[in-house]
Amino acid sequence: MMTIKRHLLLISNSTLHGGGYLEHCKEHIQTFLGSKVKRVLFVPYALHDRDAYAKTARHKFEKLGYTLDSIQESPDPVDAVQKAEAIFIGGGNTFRLLKALYDNGLIPAIKKKVFEDGVPYIGSSAGTNVATISINTTNDMPIVFPPSLQALGLVPFNINPHFLDQDANSKHMGETREQRISQYHEEPNTPPVLGLREGSLLLVEGDRATLLGITRARLFLRGHSPTEHEPGEDFSFLLNQI
Amino acid sequence: MMTIKRHLLLISNSTLHGGGYLEHCKEHIQTFLGSKVKRVLFVPYALHDRDAYAKTARHKFEKLGYTLDSIQESPDPVDAVQKAEAIFIGGGNTFRLLKALYDNGLIPAIKKKVFEDGVPYIGSSAGTNVATISINTTNDMPIVFPPSLQALGLVPFNINPHFLDQDANSKHMGETREQRISQYHEEPNTPPVLGLREGSLLLVEGDRATLLGITRARLFLRGHSPTEHEPGEDFSFLLNQI
Ligand SMILES: [Ca+2]
Ligand SMILES: [Ca+2]
Repeated sequence: MMTIKRHLLLISNSTLHGGGYLEHCKEHIQTFLGSKVKRVLFVPYALHDRDAYAKTARHKFEKLGYTLDSIQESPDPVDAVQKAEAIFIGGGNTFRLLKALYDNGLIPAIKKKVFEDGVPYIGSSAGTNVATISINTTNDMPIVFPPSLQALGLVPFNINPHFLDQDANSKHMGETREQRISQYHEEPNTPPVLGLREGSLLLVEGDRATLLGITRARLFLRGHSPTEHEPGEDFSFLLNQI
Repeated sequence: MMTIKRHLLLISNSTLHGGGYLEHCKEHIQTFLGSKVKRVLFVPYALHDRDAYAKTARHKFEKLGYTLDSIQESPDPVDAVQKAEAIFIGGGNTFRLLKALYDNGLIPAIKKKVFEDGVPYIGSSAGTNVATISINTTNDMPIVFPPSLQALGLVPFNINPHFLDQDANSKHMGETREQRISQYHEEPNTPPVLGLREGSLLLVEGDRATLLGITRARLFLRGHSPTEHEPGEDFSFLLNQI
């Protein structure tokens, strides 16, 4: 049997209320990357000012003991991916991020690195959305039009990052997050959606997936009622579908 | 000089907190349609259950004195548009709505009816988004992939319906609505975005546009600070660009 060389750390949100950038998940990042990885390739495409974004990420990763190379600093982004020891895709606008991944020919390059070479992948927020099968469950505004909503497909389901419970006191009449996800599941053949509340992370190692962090997650399966899941729970069954 | 035969009533939200369906804007609808219109063609594509949606809309419009024909009841949707005395496109998911408009060949048909025949158009929420130049500023989740984000273009700018002010007490770290719109304006050549809070409507008659309703609107122009506008204000300048 072939072993799946897949190492993913999929973070709901880069910043938790009251904390600094990646502060709430820094131990998880260190444990995940370990001591073999020295350099991390950062993909800042989700924000407009890529250099400013790289500066923020570099500051944090250097503090954690890693050198950060930001992909826009390389003349050849595909080559940068091919040489990467680890990849980190940060949050921002998911449509902008996915379009830039397509525009730069990075979808097949990153998939190959993760699945064939076993290079660790960290995604946060939009970087988590693009790691999944598609960006159909992003919360972001469609400020640009990517050629497809299909994404890296590193896992065969969807994630909704920054998952938000209904506020019973709100007078706002826009759809709740749960209503939006259930509208997605009205469409045929739509995969599971894992709602990762802020403070949650999903760790995927080969064919095993585990919920990490400090908040519960809410899982939506087409045709079923949503279910609540505690940190530490095994989500490997989500990797086995199709 | 050619007169623009354009009559639009663009509503932020179908239901205001504590009120019934279209209750907060029923007088505006009656004034807008007047007594010459007897039948309204309803487009329920933004929700999955079109028949249930048509029933809700029919109930309301009959109370207001109009007969409602729902487009999915017609064997030929383009023909239904061509025969329409007035068109009402309801809210729901904007991506689903726009995709169905394209799939049924209704984009050119509705444009022609509004611009050449002067047929009154009412949009609410997603129905307001698709009336504008594009759906780039929808709040909805991209549950399906339309062939383009370009929409009916009945006005040459964008609207953000259900516009929501930042909640200073929120601990949620997702982007505020204002941040999302400013990310849109980081992209080149992006048109103005009119943020219509719940309770707002924009009336467009030919080359005149007026804010109606009970709440202020927030206007975003690329490269400028946002501005606040009172009900009754003239927005005709938004119709004159490009
Ligand atoms: Ca985002
Ligand atoms: Ca909606």
